[in-house]
Amino acid sequence: MGTTQLESVPEPKYWHLKTVLSEALDSEFSVGEILPNERDLAARFGVARATLRQALEQLELEGRLQRRRGVGTTVAPPRVGVAVGTEQHDWPGSGDDAWQPVDCVQAAPPAGVAAALEIPSGEAVHIVRRSRMSHGQLVATELLHIPAASVPDLTAIDAPSGPARARAVLRELQHLELEGQDRAVELGSARADDARDLDRLPGAPVLMVTTRFFAEGRTAALSVATYRADTCRLTFGDSPGVEIHHDPEQQAS
Amino acid sequence: MGTTQLESVPEPKYWHLKTVLSEALDSEFSVGEILPNERDLAARFGVARATLRQALEQLELEGRLQRRRGVGTTVAPPRVGVAVGTEQHDWPGSGDDAWQPVDCVQAAPPAGVAAALEIPSGEAVHIVRRSRMSHGQLVATELLHIPAASVPDLTAIDAPSGPARARAVLRELQHLELEGQDRAVELGSARADDARDLDRLPGAPVLMVTTRFFAEGRTAALSVATYRADTCRLTFGDSPGVEIHHDPEQQAS
Repeated sequence: MGTTQLESVPEPKYWHLKTVLSEALDSEFSVGEILPNERDLAARFGVARATLRQALEQLELEGRLQRRRGVGTTVAPPRVGVAVGTEQHDWPGSGDDAWQPVDCVQAAPPAGVAAALEIPSGEAVHIVRRSRMSHGQLVATELLHIPAASVPDLTAIDAPSGPARARAVLRELQHLELEGQDRAVELGSARADDARDLDRLPGAPVLMVTTRFFAEGRTAALSVATYRADTCRLTFGDSPGVEIHHDPEQQAS
Repeated sequence: MGTTQLESVPEPKYWHLKTVLSEALDSEFSVGEILPNERDLAARFGVARATLRQALEQLELEGRLQRRRGVGTTVAPPRVGVAVGTEQHDWPGSGDDAWQPVDCVQAAPPAGVAAALEIPSGEAVHIVRRSRMSHGQLVATELLHIPAASVPDLTAIDAPSGPARARAVLRELQHLELEGQDRAVELGSARADDARDLDRLPGAPVLMVTTRFFAEGRTAALSVATYRADTCRLTFGDSPGVEIHHDPEQQAS
């Protein structure tokens, strides 16, 4: 695999090792295969174990390797493109939404969320928890914050909690006219409960997608979604996802 | 700052410490302030240094702390919203583009890029290197890959290299009719040259944004942009960026 070096720069040792390892992954290993242990790998490439570990961390960040407790380090399949931005603007829960409601509670959101919703700090909102599957795997969890003012006709009678309650809240939300939405993507670390659902360790790097839904001239709902960063590539636009970080042979498998 | 705990889950020690530290950052420290050294911090919170380090790593991932060589650990300013997705579709370099051309070379792109451009592996393309400033800081670098077929009338005469050459290539590109574009965002690690330009260490987590530009029924150009993940929040849509991960008091400062 060729590399594009526009300018000659001094590269740290682990960086060079990463390139060599990356080529070895392409030529000698198949997806899902377990790598030899660190001691053997370090010996094979003639490097210190600390250097090896840094190179393995890089490859994990780039989605080439997965490290799982009790399994070891395996060759990761290509990242899955997960559509996040679409041309049409819809309320959560409408149409062919990729998200499944899991639960719904009433609680005060974090201060930052309250500020974004322009509600007093400490005021309870509906918090719908949802999860998203893609290719048979849980790829994201979401907390959707909906102030009481956005669902004024909601009754507590028929579904006090659980997925049924979540669906009732989302159904009420559809009565508002959605005026627009915007999104932000940033790096984050997995909270303990999200990490458990996503099969990651607490604190693992994740992609946080914050979506504001506008109605009646204000932010009527705010979604904070946590995507696995190791297996997901977030796609925006109507075309199928872009695949550039893996070898074509590996993509086909 | 309140937290939303939908279910009770066992949290690792560093996770609890992270929460405590986060509150201390809000109440006792201001943006840019240097934190006490690890030994003093570990003693103050009564934890092992390994635990402290894990908590500091989490806070760095979340953009609350910055660790800089020769300076130490400082309290990070709120992340800057950088607009990535826009409603209008334009060629790179046209209109009020936020990117500055730096250089232009002809070289064979990595195999994955060649595959996305549907050109034979090893075939040289124009590679325009650009950088993006935001709020007085370099926030992203970009390699824009343009096959020779996309700029058939380009002449080598007046600007053989450098920013002038980059501008000439981009000017030629405008002659194609842009039919559409799509984007993907994923986690990556900074290459050595990008890391140097972005003032990060090689291998630091970055947000990789891959954009495909379509014209004449094919991918006419492919951009791979590397954004600082510590200081940037990528925004999609027309509204100003969403600010939810910091304390409102800190945002105002």
